[in-house]
Formats: sequence, structure tokens, C-alpha cells
Amino acid sequence: MNYSIIRFVIGKILFVEALLLIPSLLVGFLYIGEDGSEPIFALLKTAGLLLVFSLALSVRKPSRTNLYAREGLVIAGLSWFLLSFFGGLPFVFNGTLPSLIDAFFETASGFSTTGSSVITDIEGVEHAILFWRSFTHLIGGMGILVFTLAVLPKTGSESVHIMKAEVPGPIFGKLLSRVRGTARILYVIYFAMTGVLIVLLALSKKMDLFDACCHAFGAAGTGGFGVKSDSVLFYDSAYIDIVLGVAMILFGVNFNLYFLMVYRKFKPVLKNEELRWYLGIITGAIAVICIFLWPRYDSFPRMLRDVFFAVSSIITTTGFTTEDFGKWPLITHVVLLILMFCGAMAGSTGGGLKSSRVAIYVKSAIQEVRQSLSPNRRLPFRFEGKTLDAGIHRSVFHFLAAYCLIFFVCVLIVSADTEDFMTSFSAVAATFNNIGPGLGEVGPVETNYFGLNNVSKITLSVAMIAGRLEIFPVLILFAPKTWHKA
Amino acid sequence: MNYSIIRFVIGKILFVEALLLIPSLLVGFLYIGEDGSEPIFALLKTAGLLLVFSLALSVRKPSRTNLYAREGLVIAGLSWFLLSFFGGLPFVFNGTLPSLIDAFFETASGFSTTGSSVITDIEGVEHAILFWRSFTHLIGGMGILVFTLAVLPKTGSESVHIMKAEVPGPIFGKLLSRVRGTARILYVIYFAMTGVLIVLLALSKKMDLFDACCHAFGAAGTGGFGVKSDSVLFYDSAYIDIVLGVAMILFGVNFNLYFLMVYRKFKPVLKNEELRWYLGIITGAIAVICIFLWPRYDSFPRMLRDVFFAVSSIITTTGFTTEDFGKWPLITHVVLLILMFCGAMAGSTGGGLKSSRVAIYVKSAIQEVRQSLSPNRRLPFRFEGKTLDAGIHRSVFHFLAAYCLIFFVCVLIVSADTEDFMTSFSAVAATFNNIGPGLGEVGPVETNYFGLNNVSKITLSVAMIAGRLEIFPVLILFAPKTWHKA
Repeated sequence: MNYSIIRFVIGKILFVEALLLIPSLLVGFLYIGEDGSEPIFALLKTAGLLLVFSLALSVRKPSRTNLYAREGLVIAGLSWFLLSFFGGLPFVFNGTLPSLIDAFFETASGFSTTGSSVITDIEGVEHAILFWRSFTHLIGGMGILVFTLAVLPKTGSESVHIMKAEVPGPIFGKLLSRVRGTARILYVIYFAMTGVLIVLLALSKKMDLFDACCHAFGAAGTGGFGVKSDSVLFYDSAYIDIVLGVAMILFGVNFNLYFLMVYRKFKPVLKNEELRWYLGIITGAIAVICIFLWPRYDSFPRMLRDVFFAVSSIITTTGFTTEDFGKWPLITHVVLLILMFCGAMAGSTGGGLKSSRVAIYVKSAIQEVRQSLSPNRRLPFRFEGKTLDAGIHRSVFHFLAAYCLIFFVCVLIVSADTEDFMTSFSAVAATFNNIGPGLGEVGPVETNYFGLNNVSKITLSVAMIAGRLEIFPVLILFAPKTWHKA
Repeated sequence: MNYSIIRFVIGKILFVEALLLIPSLLVGFLYIGEDGSEPIFALLKTAGLLLVFSLALSVRKPSRTNLYAREGLVIAGLSWFLLSFFGGLPFVFNGTLPSLIDAFFETASGFSTTGSSVITDIEGVEHAILFWRSFTHLIGGMGILVFTLAVLPKTGSESVHIMKAEVPGPIFGKLLSRVRGTARILYVIYFAMTGVLIVLLALSKKMDLFDACCHAFGAAGTGGFGVKSDSVLFYDSAYIDIVLGVAMILFGVNFNLYFLMVYRKFKPVLKNEELRWYLGIITGAIAVICIFLWPRYDSFPRMLRDVFFAVSSIITTTGFTTEDFGKWPLITHVVLLILMFCGAMAGSTGGGLKSSRVAIYVKSAIQEVRQSLSPNRRLPFRFEGKTLDAGIHRSVFHFLAAYCLIFFVCVLIVSADTEDFMTSFSAVAATFNNIGPGLGEVGPVETNYFGLNNVSKITLSVAMIAGRLEIFPVLILFAPKTWHKA
């Protein structure tokens, strides 16, 4: 293990976090008349601390610059914990969340683009702090480390290992071989889409520019932090629901497809198998929910609008709400729970298992039926038009094993804190899959994660980061073997 | 597809089912003074119908006797449905369960060794009917088809395909290559163990021979049908709890290990990795539950007795109860739910995922962590001291995918019938894993599956049979490809 490169890179990452506080500081100055100067000082104090730590860690150049898989994974895992810790300090210094654990939970939720909150009086929080809270989604969405790689000067060509740990999904496209250049193009697409969304939202009469920015960040990162305790329900606008609903689905698409479209390669996009699964699951879920919700609604368009928004919000793992779906019948909850596990497409800002994995699981189950009909012939497994590499296939299933394991361990821990199974089950489902609001006592409206105890909050924070990094970079931090060998 | 061999073998199987009604008929004559002659006529009518159908199906010898994997799986899947249908007729003719669907549910539950019941007044049911109900566990436990193979004259050496579909677990031991001889030895072990258990239970002052037989059948098949609405709680005897608790764990052990012990090969038994996982999970579960239950108990031995019995009953997927664990705190329920999924050892009479699969999943997750630390070296996967065959490894994971898929589809269907998530989740967990009682509205004491609607009952019946046959023989019945090709 090359400790000096880990120290050095993490130092650089903390420096970038300090820089990322600047937009929130500007918002603080804009609203200084309304909110006072306290948020500004909270942000400045945090920035100061970050700079001190960054300097301490990165002033001395690493002796060796070799960065292998092990170091890449450790950097990814460790830095997300540190970013969440330091990123939570403005909430503490400002008095919004006096508890360090609450602040860590809120920021881990932000960076991991989960959107689970422990803030009870969201309307009373200052603009600069709210802006920082939503801004963490934008940063987390595409991976702050990739950002660091794309922007900072070269630290070594092996930096692909960090990116590998951060970009979600089972298949690491060839596209990403020229890391820096590709990352820059992906960022341009990402920020352009976010910019368009800000404009579209601000065009509605109901949102001002501040609200539009926060919601656009939440949708772009598929995070889901809002600025009202009623989330998007507050605005009660068909226009906003439709714009945000469509935007969330677009941000749940694999960004490599946008990359291809930029280069005018439309055929592979139209033929993309994962995209078909993603859209198919969305359509199916909307249909099933509508069937069981129909008796409760007078107006079909109104129902469609609510269901479309809920499905779009859950499958992309964003977590905005326009309707208290906690009051819908159980079967619709089960559909939403299944969507929570499915998640968005690989290579998007969303969480969950990812459409491509779900597709591979479903196709493998069907394959096994066909295989047992012809036990003597070895049938090839095809995905995206090609025979799937056996190593990736194995990896995708090992991921499922790790996923189920961690899921049940987390449910077990949180179950010590509540007597409602839906609460513990959906709390873990909503955080581990980076969605945000759960059901039961951690439901979407009027309740949140504030009522849980510290053990649950820390467990769920770890689950959020593990979900965002697709488990292994976090598991590795707990493996003794990682630290033992020199 | 060789339809004539399917027809012929199923005819023979129905004939065996008619013969298997004889012990219950004898019980009917024994209790004729107390119960009247109605149960006898119900059993005779069923036997008559079975003989007619059996004759019709098997009078004409099959043109070709080739029996491949496809036919084997179809026979296994189909015959379990038919056996459950015909086996339910005594309940209908006797008036115990007037609804055919209820009777099918009860008998599918019996043959699949699940033990979920829809009978509300169990104390009012006649002895012969109760005996038949418990006897289905004994038959189902070791697979009526294997029984047919071992007893009936040779129909073709490919009969191993049917057995392959019925014997639970991922690895089909070499032991079973000489099917008939091995099956006979396994049966001797099985019936000897059941006999000893009957004697031990009858030695307690609280159970008469009838009760002892029924409970021994329930434990042997890891089924769990009792003869009292309070299950084993009724007897309130430490002796019975301990005898049954230990017996269940013994019937959850891979029978190949007993086979080895008969031949005095103790070393491979002691070194068996699956056995260690099985006993390890039991010990761990007891420890965790005791920690959280301790504040509610005054007496440690009493708590240990209750927890040991509950854990033994759930992990072996039997489902006897001595304590209303529905009133325990949520975290203990989650432990029990996890045990429901784990299940007993492969090659036992129990259900669930099986200890060997759970071990492979856990070890694969750990393997993936180690693999990501050394991405350039392909690490071998070892189980039971050897490198695991890649085909079996793949199969074990495809099973997990099919398992999760079917599980969620069933939860979805049952959720249309209730508003309590614990009810629908645990009902599917308890039937698909062949346990019996769930939690919530289908809990162990005073509630059962009677309150569910017919769609749920049929879904859960299919889940029970699919769980018993390890999914694929049932899935194949629904695959169009099975029936299309000539």
C-alpha cells in the first residue's frame, strides 16, 4: 500500500472541497440582508479548516506516484467519508444541525445523492446553507473525484482506478480510457443539462431562481433535497411536475449515450439494451400503480401526473415528492420498493442496482430455465448484442451477494431502533439505493430520519456512501487485509 | 418431448399416492367409534379416484422409454401439483375444507413440507384426516418421486433426472449415481430416525401415540403441521421442546452425511464446510436474539429454551411454535426472517436457500473484495476444500436471481390482499421457503392463512411447490418453449 499517494491525493481533494464552497459563499453575500452574516462565517470557518488540512496532507510530494487498484479504492472510500464529514461542518457552525452525526448524515446524504434529511424545519434554514446542501448533490452526482481528476494537474495515469470505483455500473466502457478528455466532455453535457433545467424551472412563475437552482441540482444529481418541507408538492404546478419528472428520467440515463449522441452516433443509442429495460420498467411500473390507484382518483390526467412523477423520482433514485404516496395502498408501495432496488441506468447519476444488472439477473434466471432443458449444451449469455464476458458476469452476481448481505445487516441494525418493519426495511432501501425518503416512519411527507437514533444514522450514512460507490470501495476500508500488507 | 413417458410415470405416481392413503385409513378404523365413518369414506373416495386416473394414464405402456432432463423436470413439476390436488380431496369429501382451493393449499403445504394452514378449528378435525395431513409431510420430506423410483420396477436409468429435480441443494453428490440403492439406504435412515423420534415423544407423559406420530412426521419432513391450534405450545413441556428442537436440527442436516456415517466415514463429516456454516448460523442467531430478548425474560433457561426452539424450527423451515414470537421485538423478527431465507442444509428435508448456497454467496462477496484488491490475478473460489466448478458457481447465482425475482413477484401479488407489509412479506418468505407460519396477520398463534383471498392462496401454493422443487421444475411448466418443441 502506497500511503503517501493516498495522503497526497486526499489532501488535493479537500482543497477542491474548499473551492466548492465559493458558490455558496456568494449566495450568502447575496442574501446577507435577509439571513445575516452567520452562514458566511460558518462557510468560511469550514473552508479555513479544509485548507489547513489540505495543506498539511499535500504539502509534501509523495515519494512514489504509483497508484494501483488498492490505493484507488481506498482513496475513493476514505475521501467520501472525509468529504461528508467536512462538508457537514457548515451545518454545525451555523447551528442548523448542532450534532456532528446529524451533519455527517445530511452531507453523506447530499454527496451520495440520496436526499434523506434530518432537518425538521427546512423553511427556517438560511439560503447559503440550503444552497450548499443542494450543491452537494450536483458535486456528488458525477463524482467529485472524477472532477478532481479532470481539473487538477496530472498525478499519474493510474487515476483510472479511482474513477472505476466511482462511476456506477458493472461495465466500464472503453469510452473512459482517455479519462481526462472524456470526463471533460461528460461534464459539459452534465452542466449544460443542469443549466437548461434551471432556466425551464425558473420560467415557471412559482419558482424563483434560487429554488430553481436547488431543484435542478437535486434532479441533476438524482439527489432529491428540496427547499420546502413538502418537497415539490409545495409548488403544486403541472408544469413543474412534468419538467422535473422528465428531467429526472433523463439524468437517470447512461451518460455514455449522451456522449455518443454528441458525436452523432444515434444507432447504438437506439439499439441500447439497457435503455430499453430502463424505459420498459418505468412504463410497467406506471401501468401497475395506475391500475390499483384508479379507484382513488377522480381525474385520470391528475393520477397519471402523480404516478409519473413518483415513478420517475423513485426509479432514478432522486426522491422528490409531489404526493404523499405513503397513503397509497400497500401494493403500490411494493412496486415503488422494487423500483428502489432496480435504480437507474449504469453510468448515470442514479443509484440502486442499475438497469443493466437487473437485466442481467432477469436474463440469467430465464437462461437457467433454458439451460436446464438442455443440460448437455452450454448456452452463451448475451447482453447488449454480445456474449457477456464471464468475469463481468461473475462480478455482477458477486455484487448481488454483497448487496443482499449488506442490506440485511443494515435492516437488522435499524430494526433495533423501531417496531415497524416497513420503516426499517424502507429506510435501508431508500438510503442504500440513494433515494431519500422511505415509507412508514421515514415517509416522504411530514416525517424524516430525524427520529432515528445515532446508531441507525451512522449505519444509514455508511449505507448511503456504500450504495453510491457500489459497495466494494467501502467494504475494502473494513477489510484487515487492505491495511496489513505493506 | 416424450409425452407418453410423462403420462405413464404420472399414472404410476398417482397409484403410489393411493397406496399411501392406507395408513390413514387404518387410523380411521381405529378411531371409528370416536370420529364416525365419514373420514374413511372420504379417504376411500379419494383412493378410488386416484386408482381410476392412475389406470387411465398408465394402462398403455409408453412407446418410447427415453426420459431426458426436460421430461424429468416436467414430471417433477406436474406431479407435485397433481399430488397436491388429489391429496386435498379427503379434506373436501370430509367437509373439513369445502373449498377446493383451500384443500389444494393445505395439501401443497403438506407435501412441500411447508406447514402453512388454512384450517381454523384444528381440534375439531377427525384423527384420520389429521393423520393424512401430517403424513403428507413424511412423504414430501424425502420426495415421493424418489420413493416411487426406489420402490417401483425400473422405468429407465434416466430416472436420475427426476431425482435431480427433487433433491434440494446446488451440488448433486456422486453418492446418488446408483440412485435406487442409495435411495433405499437414505430411506432406512429417514424412517429409523422418525421411528426413534416417535418413541421419544410418546415417552413423554403429555403426548399419546397419535400426537407423537403426527409431530414426528412434521419434524422429519421439516413440515410443521401440528394437531393443536397452539402447536407445540399446547404441551408446555421442556422435554418435548428439547427433543423436538434437537430432532428438527438433525433433520435439517444433509442426509449424505448420515449415509457416510453409516459407512463409518466420520472424517469428511467433521470436516464438512456446509455443516459448520449451518451450526454457526444457528449459534449466531440464538446469541443475537437472546441479547435483545433478555430484558423481557426473568429466567435465562426458559428464554434459552424458547429461543432455541424458535431458531431450530425456523432455520430448518419446520415451523412448529412453542412461543408466540409474533410478540417479540422487531429485531428478533428480522433475525428469524433472515433464517427463513437461509434455510437448512442441502440434501436435507428442509427448504430455503440452503446453507451451502448461503455460504457460497457470503464467500463470493468476500472474494469480490479480495479480487478488487488484486484485479490482475484471477483468484480461485474454494468450497468444501476444493475449487468450485464454474458451472455450479454460475448456477448457484442464477438460482439467486430467479429466487429474488419470484419472491418479489409473489410479494407484489399478495400485497394486493393486505395493507400490512410484514404480512405479505413474511407470508411469501414463509411459504416460498417452506416454513409455515409467517408474522403479522399470518403469524404463528391464533392467525393463519385462512383470511387471505383465493389469488393469494393459489400464488402461495405455487410458491410452496416452487420452493420445494427449487424453482426450475415449476418455472419450466410455464415456459412456452417446454411445450412447443416436439
